Amino acid sequence: MLKAKHIDFTELTLSGGFWKKRQETNRNVTACAVYERFRDTGRFDAIACNWQEGLPNRPHEYWDSDVAKWIEGVAYITARKKAPELEKIVDETVDNIEKNILPCGYFNSYYINIDPDARFTNRNNHELYCLGHFIEAAIAYKKATGKDKLFSLILRYVDYVYDVFVKEKSAKFFTPGHQEIELALFKLYKETEDKKYLELSRYFIEERGRHEEHMCLPEYPNKIYPDEEFQSHKPVREQREAVGHCVRALYMYSAMADLAGELDDKELFNICKTLFKDITERKMYITGGVGSDRYGERFTHAYDLPNNVAYTETCAAIAMMYFCRRMSELEIDAKYADIIERVMYNGMLSGVSLDGRKFFYTNPLETDPRLLSRYDIFDEPPTYQPIQQRVEVFECSCCPPNILRLIASIEEYFYSVSSDTVFVNQFGAGELDCGNVKITQKTEYPKNGDISFSVSGNIKNLAIRIPAWCDNYTIDRPYEIRNGYAYVENPQGEINVSFEMEPFFVQANPNVIENGGRVALCRGPIVYCGEADVGTNLRSLRFVDDNFIEEFDEEIGAITLTGKLEATEVKENFGLYRKYTAPDTEKEIKFIPYYSFANHGEQEMLVWFNI
Amino acid sequence: MLKAKHIDFTELTLSGGFWKKRQETNRNVTACAVYERFRDTGRFDAIACNWQEGLPNRPHEYWDSDVAKWIEGVAYITARKKAPELEKIVDETVDNIEKNILPCGYFNSYYINIDPDARFTNRNNHELYCLGHFIEAAIAYKKATGKDKLFSLILRYVDYVYDVFVKEKSAKFFTPGHQEIELALFKLYKETEDKKYLELSRYFIEERGRHEEHMCLPEYPNKIYPDEEFQSHKPVREQREAVGHCVRALYMYSAMADLAGELDDKELFNICKTLFKDITERKMYITGGVGSDRYGERFTHAYDLPNNVAYTETCAAIAMMYFCRRMSELEIDAKYADIIERVMYNGMLSGVSLDGRKFFYTNPLETDPRLLSRYDIFDEPPTYQPIQQRVEVFECSCCPPNILRLIASIEEYFYSVSSDTVFVNQFGAGELDCGNVKITQKTEYPKNGDISFSVSGNIKNLAIRIPAWCDNYTIDRPYEIRNGYAYVENPQGEINVSFEMEPFFVQANPNVIENGGRVALCRGPIVYCGEADVGTNLRSLRFVDDNFIEEFDEEIGAITLTGKLEATEVKENFGLYRKYTAPDTEKEIKFIPYYSFANHGEQEMLVWFNI
Repeated sequence: MLKAKHIDFTELTLSGGFWKKRQETNRNVTACAVYERFRDTGRFDAIACNWQEGLPNRPHEYWDSDVAKWIEGVAYITARKKAPELEKIVDETVDNIEKNILPCGYFNSYYINIDPDARFTNRNNHELYCLGHFIEAAIAYKKATGKDKLFSLILRYVDYVYDVFVKEKSAKFFTPGHQEIELALFKLYKETEDKKYLELSRYFIEERGRHEEHMCLPEYPNKIYPDEEFQSHKPVREQREAVGHCVRALYMYSAMADLAGELDDKELFNICKTLFKDITERKMYITGGVGSDRYGERFTHAYDLPNNVAYTETCAAIAMMYFCRRMSELEIDAKYADIIERVMYNGMLSGVSLDGRKFFYTNPLETDPRLLSRYDIFDEPPTYQPIQQRVEVFECSCCPPNILRLIASIEEYFYSVSSDTVFVNQFGAGELDCGNVKITQKTEYPKNGDISFSVSGNIKNLAIRIPAWCDNYTIDRPYEIRNGYAYVENPQGEINVSFEMEPFFVQANPNVIENGGRVALCRGPIVYCGEADVGTNLRSLRFVDDNFIEEFDEEIGAITLTGKLEATEVKENFGLYRKYTAPDTEKEIKFIPYYSFANHGEQEMLVWFNI
Repeated sequence: MLKAKHIDFTELTLSGGFWKKRQETNRNVTACAVYERFRDTGRFDAIACNWQEGLPNRPHEYWDSDVAKWIEGVAYITARKKAPELEKIVDETVDNIEKNILPCGYFNSYYINIDPDARFTNRNNHELYCLGHFIEAAIAYKKATGKDKLFSLILRYVDYVYDVFVKEKSAKFFTPGHQEIELALFKLYKETEDKKYLELSRYFIEERGRHEEHMCLPEYPNKIYPDEEFQSHKPVREQREAVGHCVRALYMYSAMADLAGELDDKELFNICKTLFKDITERKMYITGGVGSDRYGERFTHAYDLPNNVAYTETCAAIAMMYFCRRMSELEIDAKYADIIERVMYNGMLSGVSLDGRKFFYTNPLETDPRLLSRYDIFDEPPTYQPIQQRVEVFECSCCPPNILRLIASIEEYFYSVSSDTVFVNQFGAGELDCGNVKITQKTEYPKNGDISFSVSGNIKNLAIRIPAWCDNYTIDRPYEIRNGYAYVENPQGEINVSFEMEPFFVQANPNVIENGGRVALCRGPIVYCGEADVGTNLRSLRFVDDNFIEEFDEEIGAITLTGKLEATEVKENFGLYRKYTAPDTEKEIKFIPYYSFANHGEQEMLVWFNI
């Protein structure tokens, strides 16, 4: 069923522009920043398995996954250009794993060190999730460096898990509480060609929802959580709606897509399509973020997309990219790359500060310190409110290393390849060399929509995605549009493409209660937000025209849009209520890319404005 | 300092129209409905003090106050026209109190029956609050029926409280956790002319905020609640902002106003004015409701007025009327009666169903079952959401009997009297007979704004409030405007007044984040809401003109306004997001008085619409 395979990230070398800059920050700043915070909080020490009561930094059951994702990110970085100082940390960490791995193959630093009797007894305790990340890290690190110690250790652990869960069925649960290992096992199968790992991945997917294995969440220890929260309410083949914890759901859907492709399983593929449609047509923020509610970090019902209390976890945005990339390999349709573009320029990228040091776990679409200050008499708000500024590390700090590994390997989203066609899914200056084909892309995208391709080698078609946001474009070659791609036959030589890139307003389906009467300003793939001093009252402003001054902002790496909006002046004696009079003044607002908000202290931020 | 005294409710006989109808429902339905639910839930049985472990309906520390408020309501009803069947219930209840009151005078059914050692040990436990309501009930019942048994019993209890709190200081706290007794004691002083009760009222007011006496709330048993929550963060004479639990605050401010007037205490009066201004110009909903947050049932910061999660407790609206009525006696300014009108036609009246049987505790300004359904996988929403429909009784059922007593004595808000002037504060057909002056008011207000007065007797001025909402009016006599009142000198004979009553839009101060770009439709004193089938998406509609068809609705007792709003049609393939196009259709919406929403099942309801 596989229609087109995404490239390995090493096959493309970014040569400048938007993502090159982000990747440099990722390599030069983020890798160390995440390491240092993880080191300071004891996550690397935990691997040594010698924490004792009374010491600071009590390890947590999911800390191994933080370290594993960081290793995976380092692997992608060092594969591109050797990073010996980072490799040294990895190697020491791997030595520690080697020292502490149990003879049976089991390795989870928390359960080895602190709670050995509880191994594989609690479905929610992230053991298989941590292993999944170790699998991905081990594969990446072996490929990047040739060093296979971690890989060998993790293989032992996987074999042990196979015995415990499939052969002996001796664990206290059947399937992971937090999915991830399924897609990792699929990667391991592709790496080793050992069908045992395909079987294990499939086992965890197919057994889900078929057993009595409920869960309680830490915040509700005495309450069985709805099975929907963990996508265990029914077997996956009976699931038709995206429900529950978003990251768990999307990691699982990713694995389902992997399996559907490998096994030519049309039923599973169609379920994935239904889930993709449910998410993208009913449950996704304009930023590509998903997760409407902090309670359960989950998909809620259709069109329920609150802005200020949006959960929209960075990891969920990343997981959405994983799912879409796999779907785009199974069906030639530009809609998958369109969603990836929406996520990568907006709801994923907002997760990291411009300087690469700080992170959002949640990515709200509206912030205003006054909304938060409702609860300032409490030590902690009694109800969920988003943080207003990025931080260096979270107690549950899954997002920072997830961003690290994603940006370090962002190239793989740019092209996919079938037997006779190279698909251009994302735009950015760089050189693709995938053996028989070489493509040089020159562009300042998304600063503007002009792109030139130099193509050489043995290839029948170049299929260029026409972005869903673009109504007008030119291509200086004959082309045919199929499924959102412009197919240029015999593409050798130079091809010039121009996507008209003007600011435009987007409205949400009227069923999205929160956005009634409002629009979001966009330009190209970028969703903009207004950011202004507290007290500007962004929600009281209104767009009256689409005249904006475009300026390129070096720090942000993109165009800003400055425009004038209708406003009502708050004169003295305005009072609390008065008879309505039309807006009597205007206010200049600089709209910046959503991803760049909250980089200069506390301000109001709003995506959806009145029109 | 007293400038004008409100009439006793018995001096005015409503002869028809809006409030007469509500009063009949109050008498014929609400009095019994509240009694029956209180009886079913054990609140009347509790007075017998013989509940035992294992029996249903475990009494609660504040149940006495429910019974007391019901008795007070019955007193007002039977004062108007004998209600022997209701009096019988009161008399039996009073006999039970007599049987169980302790020799020392103490009476609280919960502490006598269930937890005798905890008497006066926990500031939050509502003992003084319950006594306050018993005082009010006892005064009202004695005046209405001449029966003074309850009055005598309660006097014994008050005398005991005086000894415990003032003479012996033997209680574990100094001032009530829930204010109420302060205003009740003032009433008792006015009734008895015994200065001891004035002194006790004053003691509780003046000592507040001067002692270490913090509190924990039941929902946070291990956490000291901020002293602001109970207005104990500083002595009342240092308070300048309305903070904390709204009902407690407003009962306290009412007592402060009482004391300021009686003691000619200008400092205290000016504090009351500052607090009034803080509330009405920064913290009040357009409905007159107050309380922006369920967590603490409290005032939050200026302009923080969320619509869907508005707390706006019915009791707080009633307490607001109490405070304003007292302030209007101390300063001749129509602004106080304006606020009373806003509350009585909107945020107070929404607390009871049109049929008089069901009640709202909270009165949100927006409901949509879809907003609630975000949490439908939980047994209970993990964060506050308002109920969508009124119910017959609450576990904490303070509001229903509060509505009962308020509506049963609503007449006292209509007129106030100074040495030479009768002030017309509210409008409604009826006959005032306050000794030397008789005034017949004929009107269908608020159906329209035409009012005629027939005045006879010895009086220099009739001062007619010009409602703040009214820009155009006529009075067929010479008049002079002072402080919002039209003074007609030598008013004997007939006076015809006409307030132009057209629909109008109100906007909120742009600092009210939630209402940016939106308006509320009003007509006369009534705030309207749109109510429509779920799926109408009221927030997506927009007012384009002020043409409304006015129709009188018998059930509602007021005019409805039907108009057409701009809408965007949700065609197939609308998708989740699309480039903005102007609204392409219109939608007819019937606007009904806010107070009448949720009387016909589950619908969307919205007060603030886009314009």
